Order: sequence, then structure tokens, then C-alpha cells
Amino acid sequence: MKSFRKELWFETEHRRDYLNITRHVEMCLRESGITEGLCLVNAMHITSSVFINDDEGGLHHDFEIWLEKLAPEKPHSQYRHNGFEDNADAHMKRQLMGREVVVAITEGRLDFGPWEQIFYGEYDGMRRKRVLVKIIGE
Amino acid sequence: MKSFRKELWFETEHRRDYLNITRHVEMCLRESGITEGLCLVNAMHITSSVFINDDEGGLHHDFEIWLEKLAPEKPHSQYRHNGFEDNADAHMKRQLMGREVVVAITEGRLDFGPWEQIFYGEYDGMRRKRVLVKIIGE
Amino acid sequence: MKSFRKELWFETEHRRDYLNITRHVEMCLRESGITEGLCLVNAMHITSSVFINDDEGGLHHDFEIWLEKLAPEKPHSQYRHNGFEDNADAHMKRQLMGREVVVAITEGRLDFGPWEQIFYGEYDGMRRKRVLVKIIGE
Repeated sequence: MKSFRKELWFETEHRRDYLNITRHVEMCLRESGITEGLCLVNAMHITSSVFINDDEGGLHHDFEIWLEKLAPEKPHSQYRHNGFEDNADAHMKRQLMGREVVVAITEGRLDFGPWEQIFYGEYDGMRRKRVLVKIIGE
Repeated sequence: MKSFRKELWFETEHRRDYLNITRHVEMCLRESGITEGLCLVNAMHITSSVFINDDEGGLHHDFEIWLEKLAPEKPHSQYRHNGFEDNADAHMKRQLMGREVVVAITEGRLDFGPWEQIFYGEYDGMRRKRVLVKIIGE
Repeated sequence: MKSFRKELWFETEHRRDYLNITRHVEMCLRESGITEGLCLVNAMHITSSVFINDDEGGLHHDFEIWLEKLAPEKPHSQYRHNGFEDNADAHMKRQLMGREVVVAITEGRLDFGPWEQIFYGEYDGMRRKRVLVKIIGE
């Protein structure tokens, strides 16, 4: 069994943002030399998310509105977590969108359906944060 | 390390539906010959879901009402994604229910608690769509 | 390839509760002797959850309020699942918080960011329930 590990660093311009990181993960896969196995991609921070969905700007705008409806940022004082912090909503948004994805590796490629793309979802950004890529297989 | 891959095809009768796919995954496992490892089951489309919960019709009815409350389909015009499409809500429902499950394989079986069953959750159906089963182990 | 399996048993004092189970998973990892691979931790019951977030009591209080807003327990009669049961809301809360996490194992450790901790989230407790830990690797 082979294994491969890499950290990807990202810093978003806005507090909340979506980055398509599919190519970064594909580069990790090529570097690993693994052709059959599983690839885990997870946020290493608890106020951000890794998920698979559509690379369409309208949808990302809809996600912003929708997550603000289900887990609003403000008023900050509505959350007990926000004594010394202001990011309780980011911890909730990340639960809705998910910490991680596991992707099948088949014949040296991310084994994806036609529209699957991997995103880093940031809910408390404007600082450097990490995503972990771990691949095991042969 | 052994690996196994299979696509399962489904077409639901309704726009939204739940199919118990546990037996399909068990047949994949038997076919794979793998007795110890991990089994990934994921929707290959970004408007459907794979999740583990109870095989109880009342609960699936409750899911339908609940998901429509949290991410309503209509009016279609409320979502920017719906310029040429009408399925923005399906992208959101799938985030709430999840893209994938990873199941332990132990002694040749899906290592499940008493009520765990695998479901395909469809939010934009009435067309052929796929689920990927990938098993790695020995 | 090595594999390791263990069930962890928990009984919470309240209907809903959060337990930090990181140390239990670390003990499994040590016992397994595996230093490179993947670790799956999943609820074996369909009214509880395993997730990764912050070990901060204020946040867990916020989760309680928030999940009750998105998937309220009462009135029990609002859910069709609650003919002979009263826990439909717990099936929904577990969907929001997730069934499982997959954690990378690197150099014999859970490969975590600075604040990642593993929690058992209980939504229908006060009885003995199980979490499965399955580790594969070398």
C-alpha cells in the first residue's frame, strides 16, 4: 500500500468564499503515483468546508443567501460561542456543507461523474488556512 | 490491496424519491471478494445524495416536507442558478443529506448497526443517474 | 494491509448531548499499530452523529438551539415517523451533523488541524449506543 499526504494553503479575499480546488487535488494525485485507491480531502479548520458540487457562480451566490438564512452570522450576540469570537455561524455553516469528501481513484484519475468538482468553502476567511489531501492505494 | 468499482444506475418515478440500495451494495461486495476494508458509495451527480438512515416510509415523507421547508423548490425564480435550469434547490438538498457514505467492511459484510440502510436520495429525478461503489481492501 | 475494528459504547445523561471521543479514537489507533492509512469513525445508530468541530461548551449550546430551530423535536405529532416513536427529529438532526468522519493517519497520529476534535452527537440518548472505529493501512 502506498500513501501520500499534502497540505494545500488558501487565503480568501472575503469572509465567505468558494474556491474550486479540483486541479490542486489532481496535481496531488499525479504526484502520488497512486492509480487505484481512495482520496480524502478535508478542511483542517473547523470554520471551513470541503464539498463536491457544481462550478457555477449563480449557485455559489445562492449558497451564500441560503446559508445566511439557515445559520445567520449576525447579530453576533445571538451565539454563546461569540464571547471572544464572532464566528459561531461559520462552525454551523461548515456542518451543513461538510468537512470532507472521499473520492475514488480509478486508473489514475479522480473517479467523477460529469459535473463533480471539489470546492473549498470558507466561512471565516481573509487568513491563511489549510486543506489536507491524503491518498492511499497502489 | 484489492480494489473494486461498479456504477449503479437508477431512474426514479418522481422528481424527489428515496431508494434503498443496500442490497445493490451488498452484491458489489460479494462480487469484489473483499472481506476487510472500506466501501465508498457516492452519488455521481450533484443533485442527488447517498446517505444512511432508517427504511421507514413515514420518515421519508417527513424528509420530503422538511427539505422543502429548508430548501424549497419553488418559486424557481428565487435562485440565481435557475437561469436555464430549475434545480438549484436540488443542489442544496443534496448538501443537507450528503454526497457519500463510507462503510467499514468486516469479515465480508457491511459492518452496520441494527437499523443502518443505504439510500439513494433523488432531488431532480425522472432520468437515469448513477451511483459509484468503490471498495478497497483485502 | 492491516485492518482494525472496535466498537465504542456510550450512554448520555440527556436526550441530546455531545461527547468528545478523540481520546477513545486515539487509543484505538495506538492499539491498531497502524501508522499510515485512513480511520473511519461512524455512529452505528441512525439517531446519532459523529462529527469534527470545536471543543467549546458555548458552541455546543448554540448547536442545541440551532438544531431545535431547523428540526424541532416537538410537537411529536408533526412527523409521520412518530406513530410508535418520538424521535423523527433525531433522524433529521443526524443528517445535518453527519453520520461519520474519515481521518487521515500519518506517522501514527490522527492527522488533524489545530482545533479538530471528534464528537459523538446524541439526539435520542439515555440508552447505550455504539460508535464504530475502523482503521485500514500499514
